[in-house]
Amino acid sequence: LETPYIFPVIDPTLKNQIVGLDEIRSIGFNGIITNAYLLKKNLKTVESIHERLNFDGIIMTDSGAYQILRYGHVETSNREIVQYQCDIGSDIGVILDMPTPYYVTRENALKSAEITLNRAIEVSDIINSCRETLWVLPIQGGTHLDVLSYYARRSTEIFGYGYSIYALGSPTTLLENYILDKVVDMVYTVRSSVEPSRPLHLFGAGHPLIIPFVVALGVDLMDSASYILYAKDKRYITRRATYRLDELQYLPCSCPICSKYTAEELREIPGNEVTKLLALHNLYTLYAELKEIKECIKEGRLWEYLEEKARAHPAGRRAFEAVKKYLAYIYSRAPYSKPRGKGVFIVSEDSVYNPKILIPRRKIIENMTPEKEHIVFIPLRRPYETSHYYTAEPVHTPSNERCIEITASSSYDIYLYHPVLGIVPKHLLDTYPFSQFETFTLYRPELVKTLVYTLIEFVLLASRARRSLKVHVIVNDDTEWQRMFAVHLKHHVKILRSKGIEFHLIENNAKRVTSELDDQHLI
Amino acid sequence: LETPYIFPVIDPTLKNQIVGLDEIRSIGFNGIITNAYLLKKNLKTVESIHERLNFDGIIMTDSGAYQILRYGHVETSNREIVQYQCDIGSDIGVILDMPTPYYVTRENALKSAEITLNRAIEVSDIINSCRETLWVLPIQGGTHLDVLSYYARRSTEIFGYGYSIYALGSPTTLLENYILDKVVDMVYTVRSSVEPSRPLHLFGAGHPLIIPFVVALGVDLMDSASYILYAKDKRYITRRATYRLDELQYLPCSCPICSKYTAEELREIPGNEVTKLLALHNLYTLYAELKEIKECIKEGRLWEYLEEKARAHPAGRRAFEAVKKYLAYIYSRAPYSKPRGKGVFIVSEDSVYNPKILIPRRKIIENMTPEKEHIVFIPLRRPYETSHYYTAEPVHTPSNERCIEITASSSYDIYLYHPVLGIVPKHLLDTYPFSQFETFTLYRPELVKTLVYTLIEFVLLASRARRSLKVHVIVNDDTEWQRMFAVHLKHHVKILRSKGIEFHLIENNAKRVTSELDDQHLI
Repeated sequence: LETPYIFPVIDPTLKNQIVGLDEIRSIGFNGIITNAYLLKKNLKTVESIHERLNFDGIIMTDSGAYQILRYGHVETSNREIVQYQCDIGSDIGVILDMPTPYYVTRENALKSAEITLNRAIEVSDIINSCRETLWVLPIQGGTHLDVLSYYARRSTEIFGYGYSIYALGSPTTLLENYILDKVVDMVYTVRSSVEPSRPLHLFGAGHPLIIPFVVALGVDLMDSASYILYAKDKRYITRRATYRLDELQYLPCSCPICSKYTAEELREIPGNEVTKLLALHNLYTLYAELKEIKECIKEGRLWEYLEEKARAHPAGRRAFEAVKKYLAYIYSRAPYSKPRGKGVFIVSEDSVYNPKILIPRRKIIENMTPEKEHIVFIPLRRPYETSHYYTAEPVHTPSNERCIEITASSSYDIYLYHPVLGIVPKHLLDTYPFSQFETFTLYRPELVKTLVYTLIEFVLLASRARRSLKVHVIVNDDTEWQRMFAVHLKHHVKILRSKGIEFHLIENNAKRVTSELDDQHLI
Repeated sequence: LETPYIFPVIDPTLKNQIVGLDEIRSIGFNGIITNAYLLKKNLKTVESIHERLNFDGIIMTDSGAYQILRYGHVETSNREIVQYQCDIGSDIGVILDMPTPYYVTRENALKSAEITLNRAIEVSDIINSCRETLWVLPIQGGTHLDVLSYYARRSTEIFGYGYSIYALGSPTTLLENYILDKVVDMVYTVRSSVEPSRPLHLFGAGHPLIIPFVVALGVDLMDSASYILYAKDKRYITRRATYRLDELQYLPCSCPICSKYTAEELREIPGNEVTKLLALHNLYTLYAELKEIKECIKEGRLWEYLEEKARAHPAGRRAFEAVKKYLAYIYSRAPYSKPRGKGVFIVSEDSVYNPKILIPRRKIIENMTPEKEHIVFIPLRRPYETSHYYTAEPVHTPSNERCIEITASSSYDIYLYHPVLGIVPKHLLDTYPFSQFETFTLYRPELVKTLVYTLIEFVLLASRARRSLKVHVIVNDDTEWQRMFAVHLKHHVKILRSKGIEFHLIENNAKRVTSELDDQHLI
């Protein structure tokens, strides 16, 4: 089973299973989840679940906790249902946890979490002797993050009793109501409290809009009945939202179902048959989302994908803003190596937070110290222009043309500046990501302002290392963000001058830049 | 033929046509484009093109202009190839225009445009007598926008000679190099110069990344060979970019091809067979993009889709920034009626430019004048909160709770303010879009600053209408954007006071708001 993965929920009796398990499998899903409690209630006997369902993929079973949430109680005990899951040969089993509905008080959340933890301890002998099944340890606490955090940490103490997978319980109501920012908070709280190497399951997450955000924070496994519940309700899942079939005039999808039927044709198909077609479409959509996310992970561009998804729906944007609260955590875990394939895509103001950009940006500021007395800052342009940086005939970059002459001298350090990439030493220009990025050019004021602060921070840090420092900032008047940059920089030079740093802002077109630099005996 | 539409380019001899026309049709494409010049060269006889290709959908023929661009000349004349297209029964025919490569001088662009115009005049007798074919009038000028604009206007003078469709010629090189912002400029230049009711064809546009942007500016028809050219080059089109098959680990798509094969399996399929599968995938992707755009148009959410697409790829962002230069044009043509379905999605800083938002925002500021001496401004919260605005028990909105008491009085006008929606009179709260929007809450400083300017503009306009004006702005200290709003507003109140306007900023939590309002005898 390759993660991240979503287990489609199936009916254990198969009586109401409108989409066949072979069909689910042929879409690409090689694992399913079903309900051990309902199976036990219906079946009364103990049989191999793989034989019973005639499914040789991975079968995860849930314990009936959802039924507790829904009906208030279940007619089984924790030990009984855990033993049952072992006996039927579940590949992944769950203890009978006590769900936390999202509206409960902190007191009741504490109760659910404590009961769940105790139940996990209570069955440790069974799970320890049942090693063919991977056991899930659910963590409760609902939206009470302190409760979640406390019980997540307590759970790590008993994980070694024989558990293999952590789970975050019951955010279903939040997910259904698109309160995705709270779900992100819950996921972070649990993920950052348990061992990073252990898988984390998120119960009930089955919409393409939330999946990339929770995966970015370290969710490995999910399960969802949404594909069939929505289908029964004549609802159609897209990568950004859920539609009622009635409101669609087109089926904005290329899956086999949507390539075969029009929206109008689908509407005319009666009862269970259209439910099945919608369920298949929903499954194709979920599976394509998984493939998209996995491809993004392999390419090292999951952040770029989150930036895009954040603009697909306001709930996605809320989830994204919540993810941004946990950047420090993400950075500490982000792979720091050049990913294969394309360069970094700068597509939004949030690209500055891309781990591939902000980690080197901070490292440069914190660890690089100029060696020379003079520091020259030059604007960094687009990649195809920087590639001409050292050539005799630069393309469309009057400023860089001058820089060639500047680099011929050796009495100063050269740095490039860019609203997203920050301050880049000349000798790192040919390294990733500075050698490989693609961007747009209309940067918003806040990015340019932040760049001013970054430059000032960098110079102040540099001034600690050497007594005398002379700073020259070249700004071109042909680019809007550079004009903006000059305006903001002027507001802050007194900070530098008050520290005894000599500062020159050279706001000019290419030709005049050279002559002014000459005047200052830089060349 | 429903627009917007993309004609897949097919080989007129069918010898190298790897994907069958029946397969193209079964994906959903009911029109194709082929090359009349190449057909004529190969065939030597005159036959019905529908019979020849055995295709009963719509057949558009191109004239050989692309061959001029590629080989410098063609072995036919304008009159000859136009007559030929008529004789073979093309549904849509094109005159032999003179392409403008994107690197040519203005002088050569002028020449291409002039020759093209003259050729359009030259064949007016043929096209006038051949009314079974719809004739395309190409406009040349390349990236020289003044040339394009001049010849677009000149073209309107001869359009009545028998033409049915305008076309913008030859942005192929720009499209291939993802210089999409220039393409947007060219499209706008032509579209805004010719009659809005006439269809406009954009030659060579066949990538999902550019399609929604040019459609938003009024392109109706496109054609592209990209599906097969990319496939032959083992390239895979996605909604955001183009991949080499070799670099993909997953096929991030749900189309019948990508649901049947994995990336690895596809790589192992030899020669023409994998080309065909990739071409089919590319066609499915293009067709799904068309359906997505059409659904967005029907739902009135094309702007939201552009916001999302702009974050899919830096070239998309560049195209989007180019589209934003033409907002005045878009607004003048945007439908102004409540679309069916969901409310407005506020997903990015660019949502403020959504025609559904900025048009009413401006209308209110320009046309609404407060009647009372006192104006009270109250923050507008999320929809589910505003729906509680008049009820006895508001949810989570301490400020709104106070507003209920305020609304009981009648000695003042009440307006709500919001970083994206602007200034909204209380009585319009239940109308679209103010009654139906979904948003996030972390607004960037620039939006909040713009709101301050909007409020000041509104008050200044109001002060012209009545001599004495007293303004009360309520700000809650529990929301970041409102705190930011208060800070910026304070910087600007002197403008209001200098005009004799009484101004009160009430920065408080709910309870204190009431008492201060009481003190000011507002209630």
